[in-house]
Order: sequence, then C-alpha cells, then structure tokens
Amino acid sequence: MSTPSSDTTEKELDAVLEAAAAAQTGLAALPTTARAEMLRRIADALDGAAGDLVPLANEETGLPVQPRLVGELGRTTFQLRLLADAVEEGSYLEATLDSPDPSWPAGGRPDMRRMLLPIGPVVVFAASNFPFAFSVAGGDTAAALAVGCPVVVKTNPGHPLVSALTGAVVSAALAAAGLPDGAIALVDGEEAGRAVVQDPRIKAGAFTGSAAGGRALFDLANARPDPIPFYAEMGSVNPVFVTEPAARDRGKDIADGYLASFTLGMGQFCTKPGLFFVPAAAAQSIEDRLVAGLADRPAARLLNERIAEGYTRTLAGLAGHPAVRVLHAGRDSAAGPAPTLLGTSAAELLAHHAELAVEVFGPTSIVVRYSSDDELLACARSFTGELTATIQGDGEEEVADLLLAELTDRAGRVLWNGWPTGVAVTYAMHHGGPYPATTSSLHTSVGATSLRRFLRPVAYQNMPQHLLPKALRDGNPLGIPRRVDGMPHPR
Amino acid sequence: MSTPSSDTTEKELDAVLEAAAAAQTGLAALPTTARAEMLRRIADALDGAAGDLVPLANEETGLPVQPRLVGELGRTTFQLRLLADAVEEGSYLEATLDSPDPSWPAGGRPDMRRMLLPIGPVVVFAASNFPFAFSVAGGDTAAALAVGCPVVVKTNPGHPLVSALTGAVVSAALAAAGLPDGAIALVDGEEAGRAVVQDPRIKAGAFTGSAAGGRALFDLANARPDPIPFYAEMGSVNPVFVTEPAARDRGKDIADGYLASFTLGMGQFCTKPGLFFVPAAAAQSIEDRLVAGLADRPAARLLNERIAEGYTRTLAGLAGHPAVRVLHAGRDSAAGPAPTLLGTSAAELLAHHAELAVEVFGPTSIVVRYSSDDELLACARSFTGELTATIQGDGEEEVADLLLAELTDRAGRVLWNGWPTGVAVTYAMHHGGPYPATTSSLHTSVGATSLRRFLRPVAYQNMPQHLLPKALRDGNPLGIPRRVDGMPHPR
Repeated sequence: MSTPSSDTTEKELDAVLEAAAAAQTGLAALPTTARAEMLRRIADALDGAAGDLVPLANEETGLPVQPRLVGELGRTTFQLRLLADAVEEGSYLEATLDSPDPSWPAGGRPDMRRMLLPIGPVVVFAASNFPFAFSVAGGDTAAALAVGCPVVVKTNPGHPLVSALTGAVVSAALAAAGLPDGAIALVDGEEAGRAVVQDPRIKAGAFTGSAAGGRALFDLANARPDPIPFYAEMGSVNPVFVTEPAARDRGKDIADGYLASFTLGMGQFCTKPGLFFVPAAAAQSIEDRLVAGLADRPAARLLNERIAEGYTRTLAGLAGHPAVRVLHAGRDSAAGPAPTLLGTSAAELLAHHAELAVEVFGPTSIVVRYSSDDELLACARSFTGELTATIQGDGEEEVADLLLAELTDRAGRVLWNGWPTGVAVTYAMHHGGPYPATTSSLHTSVGATSLRRFLRPVAYQNMPQHLLPKALRDGNPLGIPRRVDGMPHPR
Repeated sequence: MSTPSSDTTEKELDAVLEAAAAAQTGLAALPTTARAEMLRRIADALDGAAGDLVPLANEETGLPVQPRLVGELGRTTFQLRLLADAVEEGSYLEATLDSPDPSWPAGGRPDMRRMLLPIGPVVVFAASNFPFAFSVAGGDTAAALAVGCPVVVKTNPGHPLVSALTGAVVSAALAAAGLPDGAIALVDGEEAGRAVVQDPRIKAGAFTGSAAGGRALFDLANARPDPIPFYAEMGSVNPVFVTEPAARDRGKDIADGYLASFTLGMGQFCTKPGLFFVPAAAAQSIEDRLVAGLADRPAARLLNERIAEGYTRTLAGLAGHPAVRVLHAGRDSAAGPAPTLLGTSAAELLAHHAELAVEVFGPTSIVVRYSSDDELLACARSFTGELTATIQGDGEEEVADLLLAELTDRAGRVLWNGWPTGVAVTYAMHHGGPYPATTSSLHTSVGATSLRRFLRPVAYQNMPQHLLPKALRDGNPLGIPRRVDGMPHPR
C-alpha cells in the first residue's frame, strides 16, 4: 500500500502512464470470457476485503456502515459482475457483417465486418460521495476494464486510505490471476489529474463530481492537440412535479417520500431532489407535514470540509434570497448541519431561475408552489439538462402527457411516482442527461450501456478469415449476437 | 429558389433557427414508418430532379457527369432509402426493457425502459468534393432527418446553385407530404456557419472538410456555455502497405490499382491513398510502371480555386522537401494539374513524419521504399488517426498479423487487398477513425450506424403504459427488436 497522503510526482506519473499504455495490448487481446473472469475476481477480492474496506470508508467519509457502506460495496461488486455478464453475452461488441454483393447500389458491396474495440487507456476521476461505487473500483473503472481499457484512477482526496486499499486489492487480484500488469493504477493530487487528462497516452476520461471540476477537465480534454472524449457527470437539480390530483389523493405519502429522498445520505447524491413543485391548494398541508417531519432530524457530518463549506455557502445564498422563505432551518451541531427546507413560488422561480435552480450538495431542498398547470409546464420548460425529472401523478390528468414531453426533452431519466435517489444498476438504466448534467448526453455512467463510452468501431474490408477477430469470423465461433446483412441474429 | 450568392443575414438566420426549433417536436413525434416514408419521398424527388441537378453540379464542380455525378446522386438517394429501412427495422432505437425485480441486488430493480430519442436540431456543414453525397441532402442530413432531428445546412460555397436547388427539391417533397415546415433549411456564408454552431437552439453538428475548418468548428462547439457534440470528418493520408510476397507476386496489378485509386476524381477524396509503402526489392519496377502509367494522364480542373491553390502549395512544399524525389511531375494545363508522383524512403518518412505524412487534396501521392518488415512496422506505428489503412498481402506472411494490429489501433477501416477510395453505404461500414481523421472516433458519417450521432438515451422508470412511447410498451406494438431483461429479442 503506497503512502496515500502525498501527491504523485511527475516521474511516478510517467511510469504509471507508460505501464497503462503497455498494458493496453494484452488487456485488449484477452478473450471476453477472460475479461469477464477478471471482473468477477476483482468483485470477489473486494467482497473478501469488506472487513477492512468498510470501516476505513466509514472513518474517512462519515457515511454509516449499515445500510449505506455495506450496501454500496455490494452494489459495486454487483456492478462488476453485471458488466462481466454483459461482456460475456457479447452484444456490446455490435458485431455486424455484410456479405459481398456485387448488385448492391453505388458500386457493389464488399465483404464488410464491423465491431467495437477498446479505445485505449482511460483516466477515471473518483467522486467524493461514493467511496466504492464511484471511486477506484466503481462504475467507470469497471466499464473501462470490462471492454479492455487500462485505467488510471485520479483518487478523491476525501478518502485516500480506502482508495489506496481498494487499488491494492484490485491489483493483487489481477496479479494473482496472471493478468496484465499496469491494467489499473492510482494517482493522487489535482496537478497529477490535470496532467493525466492531457497526456497523449490517455484516450478517454470519465468523471463524477462538481460542475466546475467536470467542465475544467472537459475543457482540457478538448483543448488537447488530439482531443479525447471526456464523460463528466456533474450533478443536477432533479425537479419533482406533483400534479393536483396526486397532491389531493396522496399528499401525505408524497411529502414523506420526498423528505426521505432529499435527506437520504445527508442529501449528498447527484440525484437528490432539489426542487419540489406542489399545487398551491395542497401546499400548506404538505409543507406543514414536511416541517413536522424535519423537527427531529438530527444534525450529521457531511463528507468532508470542502463539501461542508460549499453547502453552508450555497445554503446561505439561497436562504437569504428575497424570493425564498425558510420553512424549516436545520439546527446545526458540532458534527454538521441538520436538514433545511426552503420555499418559493413558481412565479419567483421563473423570474430567478439561475439563482434558485442550483444544486445544493447537502440536505436542503426547495418547495415551489404553483397555481396552474400552465405555470407547472412553464417551470418544466425552464430547465435545460437534468439527470432525472420525476412526476408524481395519477395518470389520468391532462397535464401528465405535456409534462412528460417537456421533461423527456431535458432529462436522462424520467420517473413516475418514484424518487430519483437510488440508481439501479440494470441493462436499461440511463444515468446521464443533457448539459449541464453531463458533458455528453449520448452516454451513461451506470448500467450495461456504460461500456459504450470506451469503445470505438473498426470496419474490416475483405479481410481473410484467419486475420479477423473471432467475433467477426464466419460461423460465429464466439456464439455472440450479431447483425448479418442488416438483420439481427441473437446467436 | 433563393439567391445563393449572398450570405445569410443575422435576421434570416434567426428565422431559420426558430423554424428548426419549432419543427423539432413534430418531426420527433412522427412514427418511424412516417419518417422512413419521408426519406423515400426525398430520394424519389431527387431522382426526379436528376436532369436539372446533375448538369448544374457538373458546371459548378467540374466533376464529370458519367460515371461520377450520376453515380454520386444514385449513391445519395440509395443512402436515404437505406436509412429509411434502418429506421423502419427499429434496432437503432436500442429499446431495452427491464422488468421489476425486488430480488435484484442493491435495492431491487424497478420497471426500467430505455430508448434513444432525437438530440434536437443539427447543423450540417456541406463538403466541396461531393455536391450530392456529402452536401445538402447527403449522409449527415439523411441521418439527422431519419432519427427526427431538423437540419440546418451550411452550404458549401463551391456549389451554391446545386445546393439551393437540392434544398428546394427536398423542401418541396416535405411540403407535398404535409411534413413539418422547418425540417430543413440552408444558410450561406462562413459567418452564418460560425453563428449556427454556437446557437443554443442547435444540439449537434456534423462536418466534412478540411482539418483546419473542422477543428475550428469543433472548438466553437465545445466552448459553448452548453457544449454540443460536433462530428467533424477531416480527412486522412490513408497509407497502403504492400508486403514483400504481395509485391513479388502481384506487383504490376498492385501498381495499377494504386494508380487508379490515387488519381480517381483527381485525388479529391478523403480516402485517397497518400502514402504507398513498397519493399525496396520491388520498388524500382513498381515505380517504373507507375511513371509509365502516368505519362498520358491528362490535366484536369480541380473542384474550385481554393482547392487548386491549396493543392499547388502543398505539392510545392512536398516536392521541394530534401527527403523527397519527384518520380513524375504532372504537366499542368490551363484547366488544372495532371497527376504527380513523389518518392521517399521509410527512413526519411520516420525522420520527417510531420512534414511528409500530410494530406494532399488532389492527384499526388508518395511511394515509400522500405527495407525490412521491422521498418514497415515502425512506419505503421508512426501514424495516429486515419480513416483507412490498407494492406496488400498474400495472407501467409508473418508481418500481416503484426501490421494489422498496428493499423487497427490507428484507423477506422482496415482493408485487405483493396483500395480505400469508394466508401460503400452498408450496415457495417465505418467511415471514421481516431483524431485527426475525425473529432469523434466513436462515430461514423457513412452507413447505418451514422444514425447514432444524433440520438441520446432516455430511461423511463415505472412509467404507466399509456404514457410510454410505443417502442417501449408491453407487447411490442411496433414489432421492433428489443432487449428484454438483458437478452436480445429480434422481434
């Protein structure tokens, strides 16, 4: 285990990048079954080290052991195993075969075969709020390794010891399996992070964190002589829209669900609901219930000093805004803040959108009273890019269709009668959205299709059988789903 | 038909962008069958206008009517029809359904359904060298319209009349079918082009043209407050590698094929082979045959003044380079240049790669003599990003594997015993490659998967049936291929 407290030096960094570049060929050449096996070995090793990892993460982040950290580690190893399954299943390769056809229009069709190949070494910037699931062995790392890309992780300074231990566990699992050295390495420090994203040996980047940090790294990636894709997931306001019939029929349950969602993990989720639109007629009773529910919510520590400072500053700005009422002021303790609830009106939100629709990373949210469906729709249209948007409705109201259309244009995930916190790791999950939620609305950082970020297509024209990758050979030796002459063939 | 000679004014531009934004909803809401029908109507209308379009294109570009322009228009309308088929077939939507599963690890799996939706209005920058296939109604426009994105075309100044007529034919076809107004519009002038790519109503861009132009627009797209994907295809050197056995056994045929490929269309293709690696032992006889073949090649006009000037300048720089020999100097006429052949050695290429491995847009190419397989591999490794790379081999030589591995890392398409000019419009075609061939190695501008550039995923969580898009409803009412609980179901 290396000393986690000192920043990576220039010389160390060069060695890490050289090793990553050198690992590329061996990692890419592994059969998909071997790469799947590698992911499962990493998952097993992490599960085996839970007794060391979880207490360390608890100490460094203040997140509770149960259910949070134990659950998060389980989610992390499940993610590795799900991606192992996806790699083995083989659809992700998008193997596509066109047979030769001299009668094909515009000059005939040659034998053409396309598949996706690893893009090359990837830099992953770890997040502060998920010491396992979005850190050293989190989703970005899992996706890159899964498709055959070596990973350089820029660790998050909020949990240096758990980062170093995770890295050591993963490296040991790879070494024990005789897998390529250099497939994963850690670097520490902001300067090192900026250097890695600009290094020509790095071919793509992924990031989970703040808007300012994500944009700065995205700009560096694009300013390179050879720009690289940089997938930054930068958070979101995650508005929730309660229709009139839903507020009337289920107001109490909706209030309770909202309260649980925005205070979960002390509000330190990129999917935390930050704005809660309720019809004026039901607003008072919903607000009363929320305020009552918040009365005995304890103060608790936030992840780290920087986040605590940012929270205090953003909250002060919002609470002091002339358009905002403080519905419940959380009573801070020495440990940290207690949840706070603010209120405003739809008219004020529309007038001051840029100041009020801001992400507060911590346990604060704003109730927004609206007075008509038209005003609700105007509010929906005032957003640009969100990870999630949620409707609480009864399904029969006329506004639901219209609201859904507006939200679908603006969010990566649209929920019905649910809560945005909790991002299931599944095949269909999309954890992304238009800017400023992410820097690439085409991609997701969670779920089976997260693999696609680190793959690029190559077409082979008239290539002899023995030179083709197995995935593209006649007779489908890997037994994977392929598209042949335009039609899907599942096996 | 609007006056094509004057640049679009700021006021006209605003109206165009407003119309594009307004067309988005209607175009996206069309059923896939109606969008496919729309593409076929456009194709029919263009075929019907061939008698006007082809002579105009001939006049403006100097490209021959037969087989070139007639063939190119046929390729263009075929492309529209192929994308119509791809849209109807429905795989492109990537419809993915996860059924609810409370036992799913990490908190249970909700009902989650994912599909791809149109990204929004797209700006397309037309190329000079394909007045039909990469211009107003070319591949980028076809792909954007196919998935439901309105298009603003920045016309190429090299063929203003054919651009305006194509735009009018397409608009009339859309209007006759009662399709959304504003689905396509043209703007003229560099200033207008820069304004469009920075306008918040535009959500993606595509470009075919020079490295300088593509990079400048890519930088503008990324510097926006809300960056958008910008897919620039910027050309390539397209190296061809002839192995020793191939040169020995098929030297004459290979020389003839190369000559035909690099002079095709007066060398004005982004896939023109610019470097031709031949073994030293066979080099003299191959060069002799090439020089003999070039003796009676006539001079001809290039596309336009700017391209002619650029060609003359780049050629002069190469021909005057101390490492370069002039094997055959084309005799220019008043009309334009005749093909020129240059020569150098692998050692010189490796020493002066940045100066010698440059794209010459016009009928010039360089023969590179190499003296060993190791030197050939070193040359292959000296490239970074190419649209294509070609091997001429016999398949049994040891170097073929190694060469293919290096080239696959660097090119979007790898050919065996073929020639890179001629980009078939098929399902498996990949016309792209790592930077500097393009600004996004993940995407293609030709073939069925070109649709992917203008689509973004959205996930629907626990959404009632009647609010879901038809593509995601229970019972698969559209009858499209979908992925259900992780497994592909073709229908």
